[in-house]
Amino acid sequence: PDLEAGSAAEVRQRELLKPPGALGRLEEIAVWLATWQGRAHPRIERPHVAVFAGSHGVASRGVSAYPPEVTQQMVGAFVNGLAAVNQLAAETDADLRVYEMALELPTGDITQGPAMGEEDTAHAMAYGMMAIEEGLDVVALGEMGIGNTTAAAALACGLFGGAAEDWVGPGTGLDAQGERRKVEAVSKALQANAGALSDPLTALAALGGRELAAIAGAVLACRIARVPVLLDGYACSVAAAVLHKADPRALDHCLVAHCSAEPGHARLLQLLDKRPLLDFAMRLGEGSGAALAVPLLKAACAVHNGMATFAEAGVSGRAQ
Amino acid sequence: PDLEAGSAAEVRQRELLKPPGALGRLEEIAVWLATWQGRAHPRIERPHVAVFAGSHGVASRGVSAYPPEVTQQMVGAFVNGLAAVNQLAAETDADLRVYEMALELPTGDITQGPAMGEEDTAHAMAYGMMAIEEGLDVVALGEMGIGNTTAAAALACGLFGGAAEDWVGPGTGLDAQGERRKVEAVSKALQANAGALSDPLTALAALGGRELAAIAGAVLACRIARVPVLLDGYACSVAAAVLHKADPRALDHCLVAHCSAEPGHARLLQLLDKRPLLDFAMRLGEGSGAALAVPLLKAACAVHNGMATFAEAGVSGRAQ
Repeated sequence: PDLEAGSAAEVRQRELLKPPGALGRLEEIAVWLATWQGRAHPRIERPHVAVFAGSHGVASRGVSAYPPEVTQQMVGAFVNGLAAVNQLAAETDADLRVYEMALELPTGDITQGPAMGEEDTAHAMAYGMMAIEEGLDVVALGEMGIGNTTAAAALACGLFGGAAEDWVGPGTGLDAQGERRKVEAVSKALQANAGALSDPLTALAALGGRELAAIAGAVLACRIARVPVLLDGYACSVAAAVLHKADPRALDHCLVAHCSAEPGHARLLQLLDKRPLLDFAMRLGEGSGAALAVPLLKAACAVHNGMATFAEAGVSGRAQ
Repeated sequence: PDLEAGSAAEVRQRELLKPPGALGRLEEIAVWLATWQGRAHPRIERPHVAVFAGSHGVASRGVSAYPPEVTQQMVGAFVNGLAAVNQLAAETDADLRVYEMALELPTGDITQGPAMGEEDTAHAMAYGMMAIEEGLDVVALGEMGIGNTTAAAALACGLFGGAAEDWVGPGTGLDAQGERRKVEAVSKALQANAGALSDPLTALAALGGRELAAIAGAVLACRIARVPVLLDGYACSVAAAVLHKADPRALDHCLVAHCSAEPGHARLLQLLDKRPLLDFAMRLGEGSGAALAVPLLKAACAVHNGMATFAEAGVSGRAQ
């Protein structure tokens, strides 16, 4: 983090034509962007949305309201500009890239054993890292993968403890019976992978998935490349939480774009000490919430860079 | 409201390429815009930000951290493009208009008697109504007026009851002593105008101000012209609440853009049964929060109009 750029941004915020602090979170965002972009005048001219897609062995266990082939079909929809994230990215002039990760080869069924081996995990993380270039103004991360809220719930439970029920929700829209199946799958997965939970990265391999590993890699690469990150919903935040578990400061360059309707997300955000920017009861994934929040970052830059100071505007200061 | 257009928008939302409801509040916004714009495909191509400025006799009572002349100076800043709302409006391609309301002639000091007479109030409301044209896609409303959170607190207390303390906050940044002065001013204002509180419009005249009356007028005109409204923070919402007090459905065409850091705002929103779109701890006024929320409405339109349906995309539906 460039604390000097952050301090310069803070000083500027105090001089701008408004009572100090009156722009609330917009001020915090501007200072945060300055700190991580390493410039006192942050900007969001090249927003980037990266969506990673993976397929999950556990999807065959009836843990999703949609069949496993939807993952591949949705990647087709992303490529053809048909999905929600396409519209949201276009609306904010963001570059959208979709990364398809061996969809024809689902990960291992976590109810029976590990999702991935060490090499597969490392490869997926490296793939995510390579998606990041230096000089990006912000990266909004998202995922697609039928079954991945089951993997995310198991991974969150493995990392942070609690009961399976605490981390399981309806996902794409399970009924009560489906949710019970999902709780059972998560419980079984934690038993089947009990030996892998002491280390965050081992837990990621055992319970995660390729798109989740890629997101963890991308978050890591953004830290190195000084690129601020917008995290999307539940699965995306759980992937990033792997790094937080290893180092509580590992997500300081990340903002959580929104709080998902998936109930585990609010619980997770509390553990990560992250306040989401939006609370829109969204639960779509595919980076939709992260893309939706980009205009808020742009707005923070616009006021930070474009407003006059009291002195420039010739406006009187405080009376007291 | 055009319930047919709203229903058509709801049907479309259920067919789009996402689990039903998965876009949460974005779906609600699209349907709400369809209902009030009267078209199944709502759009925000001509967003409009209207800021009304008024001056307040009570400002001479030490109830603001800034001197009264700042109102006029800030209007100059708006005209010259120097303030926060200018940057936020420009960022979302909104047309910004500032309406200056007899700033050289402050309203009556509400601690001594009524702020405005009947004629002055009617004139201010009409002025606000005339700011609205048919065919606008959305109007974001805001205000500027040193002393107007004191007027707003008195008006809210007069309309909805409670103690003065419940409705008074630091405004632009009062210290504890200043806040005590403000509570005292509000209490005195309620005593001095006790006879005027039985009718919402009479209360507006007695305790409000010209910019607050203009906002009430603009909200009314938007209802007639089928223009959806984004309300800004505390003072703006109190002005609109006058209409709610007269008719609880009067603000159905309004969304509250954000929850202000001014503590009375959350209390008011609960009484109005309004969920704000953003919670950014902003407390600047001048329409800044309302302008900030415009991109969220644009995003709702973009997904509503641009996404494919499941059938169009050839993606499988629910498994169950």
